[in-house]
Amino acid sequence: MAKPFPEHPSLVGGYKPIRMECDAPDLIIEGEFPKDLNGTLYRNGPNPQFAPRGQYHWFGGDGMVHAFQIDQGKVSYRNRWARTVKWQLENKAGESLFGIFNPMENDPTVATVETNGIANTNIVWHGNKLLALVESNAPFEMNPNTLESIGSWNFDGRLKGAMSAHPKIDPETGEMLFFAYNAEGSISPRMAFHVADKDGCLVRSEWFDAPYAAMVHDFITTRDYVIFPIMPLTGSMERAMRGDPVYAWESNRNSYIGIMPRKGSVADISWFEGDPAYVFHPMNAHNEGEKIICEVCQYEEAPLFPHADGSKPDPEKSSAKLSRWTFDLSAETNTYKVEQLDDMRTEFPRLDERYSGLSYRHGYFACVIGGGAEGNRYNGLGHIDLSSGNIKTFTEGNEYAISEPVFVPRQNDSPEGEGYLLATVYNSNTDKSHLIVLDAENIDAGPLARAMLDHRVPFGFHGNWRSSG
Amino acid sequence: MAKPFPEHPSLVGGYKPIRMECDAPDLIIEGEFPKDLNGTLYRNGPNPQFAPRGQYHWFGGDGMVHAFQIDQGKVSYRNRWARTVKWQLENKAGESLFGIFNPMENDPTVATVETNGIANTNIVWHGNKLLALVESNAPFEMNPNTLESIGSWNFDGRLKGAMSAHPKIDPETGEMLFFAYNAEGSISPRMAFHVADKDGCLVRSEWFDAPYAAMVHDFITTRDYVIFPIMPLTGSMERAMRGDPVYAWESNRNSYIGIMPRKGSVADISWFEGDPAYVFHPMNAHNEGEKIICEVCQYEEAPLFPHADGSKPDPEKSSAKLSRWTFDLSAETNTYKVEQLDDMRTEFPRLDERYSGLSYRHGYFACVIGGGAEGNRYNGLGHIDLSSGNIKTFTEGNEYAISEPVFVPRQNDSPEGEGYLLATVYNSNTDKSHLIVLDAENIDAGPLARAMLDHRVPFGFHGNWRSSG
Repeated sequence: MAKPFPEHPSLVGGYKPIRMECDAPDLIIEGEFPKDLNGTLYRNGPNPQFAPRGQYHWFGGDGMVHAFQIDQGKVSYRNRWARTVKWQLENKAGESLFGIFNPMENDPTVATVETNGIANTNIVWHGNKLLALVESNAPFEMNPNTLESIGSWNFDGRLKGAMSAHPKIDPETGEMLFFAYNAEGSISPRMAFHVADKDGCLVRSEWFDAPYAAMVHDFITTRDYVIFPIMPLTGSMERAMRGDPVYAWESNRNSYIGIMPRKGSVADISWFEGDPAYVFHPMNAHNEGEKIICEVCQYEEAPLFPHADGSKPDPEKSSAKLSRWTFDLSAETNTYKVEQLDDMRTEFPRLDERYSGLSYRHGYFACVIGGGAEGNRYNGLGHIDLSSGNIKTFTEGNEYAISEPVFVPRQNDSPEGEGYLLATVYNSNTDKSHLIVLDAENIDAGPLARAMLDHRVPFGFHGNWRSSG
Repeated sequence: MAKPFPEHPSLVGGYKPIRMECDAPDLIIEGEFPKDLNGTLYRNGPNPQFAPRGQYHWFGGDGMVHAFQIDQGKVSYRNRWARTVKWQLENKAGESLFGIFNPMENDPTVATVETNGIANTNIVWHGNKLLALVESNAPFEMNPNTLESIGSWNFDGRLKGAMSAHPKIDPETGEMLFFAYNAEGSISPRMAFHVADKDGCLVRSEWFDAPYAAMVHDFITTRDYVIFPIMPLTGSMERAMRGDPVYAWESNRNSYIGIMPRKGSVADISWFEGDPAYVFHPMNAHNEGEKIICEVCQYEEAPLFPHADGSKPDPEKSSAKLSRWTFDLSAETNTYKVEQLDDMRTEFPRLDERYSGLSYRHGYFACVIGGGAEGNRYNGLGHIDLSSGNIKTFTEGNEYAISEPVFVPRQNDSPEGEGYLLATVYNSNTDKSHLIVLDAENIDAGPLARAMLDHRVPFGFHGNWRSSG
């Protein structure tokens, strides 16, 4: 007896949730998937099971994982909800019981229920586990083959609190570095830093206070440093108690970027101060001695959230541009240099992750080409050669919305950037999605192949590749 | 590595196969499903797993069963292929191996393989078994809850050969009466008549010869008679060997309707002769003593098949009209009376099946209202009150293609025609389908409720209701 979804902008068109779980073991292919591309692309995104309770937000829908398994040119597909505690309670009730951000909006029957989150943001393979991640909770483990929900994973009881949806895997050590904000549960400046070793054993946890309570969506690591960007998309329960938004943009606060030497501790964090700005996602960073260079997709003001006074974000200011931050730890300054690298609207930056935290040359991102189409978000993909600044792009027009691109090297030892880009494409004419594979060195040549679905993969957030080789 | 389907008219638009099996346990409902409608609507139709080998025909795609389980206003959906021997061999090969009608078109690797058919035409609950039916093979059993394929069912070895997809269940005895054509396998005039008792035990089998080898899609039963319509959509392997169609319309042959007293045997069949015409589906028949009255959807010439000379059927002549045949077994004649009851284009006639073979008043059918739209086949449903000849119709316009309607009585002892009509609707604007429920006494008032899918249910053939009450 599920009710229709309301006409919320994040519940219509390519955002509209699908309500079935399915298996499509042999997708129709246009072109040919490369025979040396073997493994699984996992993607995660919000797909609320039921019409929302109270005001919806794109970040607040139940996670649904989509897996494209590629094997010798054959592509199979499977999608499953992350069947969290919230999902199970609501499944039983046949309707939403939990508010999106504000626990005061919960149904009275679940007012005191502790859930394990919505597992909707990222999906990462590390330590022999497939972990669906949302920044407000511990990881949620799923079976990598069946996508069956296993349950919360707290590293054998070692992880206290949440885990960011954006861990970084050190390509040299295999360690997974991650952090948490609101690290003691409720909204606060309290943060945590954690390291799991290459086998997924949590070996380091430290706590510290940020300058203020912010939504800290991602962080950055280099071979020698960890970078915590605290930027003024602030969280406040006091504000929520007044009936104002829990999370809001505060343009009168500065950004604070904390930099910690990996060989030191949180006591060694240096805070750098900059203009108000927002970054959901860095592309990568590396350090040359004590000089740290970060490429990020930076907004003048945060999108998707209101200003503290309730007014809406400015569309122009709340579109991200590829930018570079440079920090010099040896200089007598607490400021940093910000340069815009290009004026295209970009998001979901990625790289050849064998170079995560290291000096690198190739970056990839979703972008808006030629104005874009309302509701379709990113209609293109971009590849930047950071050695020259040259950018190649790919688009099939405004009818097509493209996900974050995921890079897969051709061989484990291929040179940086030699390999494939995978992304899902939503065709708004047919209301269906397909997977594309591009030659990462020639994305402007268009897809090598497409694997066609009979349904829509709703706009999602992040994905990762697990090689079967 | 599945190849795209070709642009065949029965493989595009609402016919286009879907290639996933899915579970949608709680469909979004518009309106309210009646609380006294509890059970499962099963539907079957062709949904080829792979692009066809050689020329495609709508009748030749692998069966896919769609189940809508309705429980106290909640509707859940599941679809599964009938995983026949052909389906399994082709699944393993990743492509079609078998020709549609002509075994000479098979891949050499399966030239000598006996399959168990494609199970794509009807889905019937009888004798505690869910049977997917195609007229060229024995029934194919599926799990009524999971739709898992179980395999061929030959009534504990008692059924020799095929079973029509259109058995009739006698509402008074619970017996299932059925027949077969090409009853010894290859194309021939050989036919069979069978009866399974109410528990599904095959208790009667007889064989006879029709006047010629025809495609005999359906038959009719009354309380006292069995009616075998042999009409000149003929089958001929000799013709196929010449490179002409296996099945073709022969306008120079008459129709022969065989009538057998149920208390007699096939030796007692009387053959009645009439003008060439074709009927895929009767609505029902009953007898008043030795007078037999049948309502059928009759074509002047068969649709969907070429003339024997290879020319295409005439669009006007190959559209069915609701018609009545009257036979008088007591009269000294071998002819019968044919009257057209209405000039609307109709198909998929059904009734309140508690009156199958008995005097009845209410019939239901799919129909074309106001010209119709190319490719969308039937855009409406009709209800005829046979006592007055009055017809009520329902349509939502040419964008909507509607399946065969299935009648469900409100209560087991409700008067004839008091209950619900269920049908699936394909919306060509969204390329998605939904289930509708109509008040069978007021179909012109439009649906009481709709249950929405996120995908297309490709145009199919037949369905049946299994009550959970």
